[in-house]
Amino acid sequence: MANKSSAAHTLANWQAPAGKSASRFSLARLDPAAKPWSSGDKESDKAAVDALAMELDALQDLFYADRRFKLLVVLQGTDTSGKDGTVRSVFSRTSPLGVHTLGWKAPSEDEKAHDYLWRIHKVMPGAGEAMIFNRSHYEDVLVPVVNQWITPEQTRQRYQHINDFERLLSDTGTVILKFMLHIGFEEQRGRLQERINDPTKHWKFSMGDLAVRKQWDDYQKAYEALLRATSTPYAPWTIVPANSKTHRNLMIATVVRDTLKKLKLRYPPSDPALQGLVIT
Amino acid sequence: MANKSSAAHTLANWQAPAGKSASRFSLARLDPAAKPWSSGDKESDKAAVDALAMELDALQDLFYADRRFKLLVVLQGTDTSGKDGTVRSVFSRTSPLGVHTLGWKAPSEDEKAHDYLWRIHKVMPGAGEAMIFNRSHYEDVLVPVVNQWITPEQTRQRYQHINDFERLLSDTGTVILKFMLHIGFEEQRGRLQERINDPTKHWKFSMGDLAVRKQWDDYQKAYEALLRATSTPYAPWTIVPANSKTHRNLMIATVVRDTLKKLKLRYPPSDPALQGLVIT
Repeated sequence: MANKSSAAHTLANWQAPAGKSASRFSLARLDPAAKPWSSGDKESDKAAVDALAMELDALQDLFYADRRFKLLVVLQGTDTSGKDGTVRSVFSRTSPLGVHTLGWKAPSEDEKAHDYLWRIHKVMPGAGEAMIFNRSHYEDVLVPVVNQWITPEQTRQRYQHINDFERLLSDTGTVILKFMLHIGFEEQRGRLQERINDPTKHWKFSMGDLAVRKQWDDYQKAYEALLRATSTPYAPWTIVPANSKTHRNLMIATVVRDTLKKLKLRYPPSDPALQGLVIT
Repeated sequence: MANKSSAAHTLANWQAPAGKSASRFSLARLDPAAKPWSSGDKESDKAAVDALAMELDALQDLFYADRRFKLLVVLQGTDTSGKDGTVRSVFSRTSPLGVHTLGWKAPSEDEKAHDYLWRIHKVMPGAGEAMIFNRSHYEDVLVPVVNQWITPEQTRQRYQHINDFERLLSDTGTVILKFMLHIGFEEQRGRLQERINDPTKHWKFSMGDLAVRKQWDDYQKAYEALLRATSTPYAPWTIVPANSKTHRNLMIATVVRDTLKKLKLRYPPSDPALQGLVIT
């Protein structure tokens, strides 16, 4: 499992397929303990993450100057799946000027008075900016679905709204990367227990987390359904085996780096008047 | 022309059809001097507009209390077509608390850094609120189209974005009414001349208006194309013959009133504890 296999290491194997083959996608078949991006050695993987974080900083600087694109990174996953940790490890070195992070909670009264994508659209990144979402609009096809606050028909309608919305973003220059941090039921047990045992982690724990844990199977089902319905060529879902934190960081940082590299970013053409200009 | 004919008075005759028959829609065939909603007497038409404005005030109060819906009214039309005048005459009596008006100009730097629907979505009305747009996101399929800043393919893409966006709004409770204020070329000439002749109206005139007037035919073509592409069952376009200001007000006020009436608005159920409660 720890060894990098070239087949497993193919990104397509870890993305929810778009279009006709989407219905064959099975979340349960993906092992949360897999480490397809790992070198097999934890220390060198950690060093690789640090190197990638540095590389991302340089790329983001270029991205900010280039201004042809916007970047939206969505991090989704159950409690303790490592969304906060990913932000800290992968995007720690980028400039706060061009990279913003937003953690989503239950909607406010004002937000509830509007459509559920209103608060999302408002904070979309501008040209050259990156936005990292810790949870996202996908919560609106998870919590209400599992608790049956909306009908299956309304759920399908929401998938359509989300796909339409993301197409608008994509058509107008936003690069969208969506990561589902995939951990196992037993892994979550350990991580929750750790939060309970460590008083400095109590603030991260709420009794409500246990109620949500009881709905584990329902959430996995809701995740599988949304991954099938909302993975598109312009906004694909990548499922990240995330039992190993180092592997999770390595894989996400690699995918973000590779995506930015493919954009062929460049500094905007400079003013010819600057050529040979000497400041006196 | 001045007499109300029951056939002409049918709203469907003045709406751009949605779906398959959309391509047969012709703007030129609709007479901007027609007065299908008129009683034939100007004074009684004016009195009817006042009565409707009062009725709209009562309905809006109910709309605000009901909170099940939001209302978006889009007013589009060439320069001098009467968008400001419509706001003043039709929505003059409604409470500023629940009714907001927004006139759209060219986008700011910050707005240009985002997709063109970003600034629109941000200001969408909340539950129980109404928003009146003087110009709108439809400018983004007019000015750039006429000036060929975007390709026909990009224009089609935008129609799709707009239809998707309006479907999201409609699915989540927004009632959308779109009015194209239809005046003739000669009528515009007279109104622009009036602005030039009257110093108190000079602020409403800019030399740019003359350049736009030279593109009259191109704008009519761009209007016809967008009316064909973006009139949907959930957000229909109504073409308002608007050479007569009174008729324009009468027709728009009637359509808005009729639409609100169909919603079967009601005050929310009151707290049973209020029954017979005596304040001491």
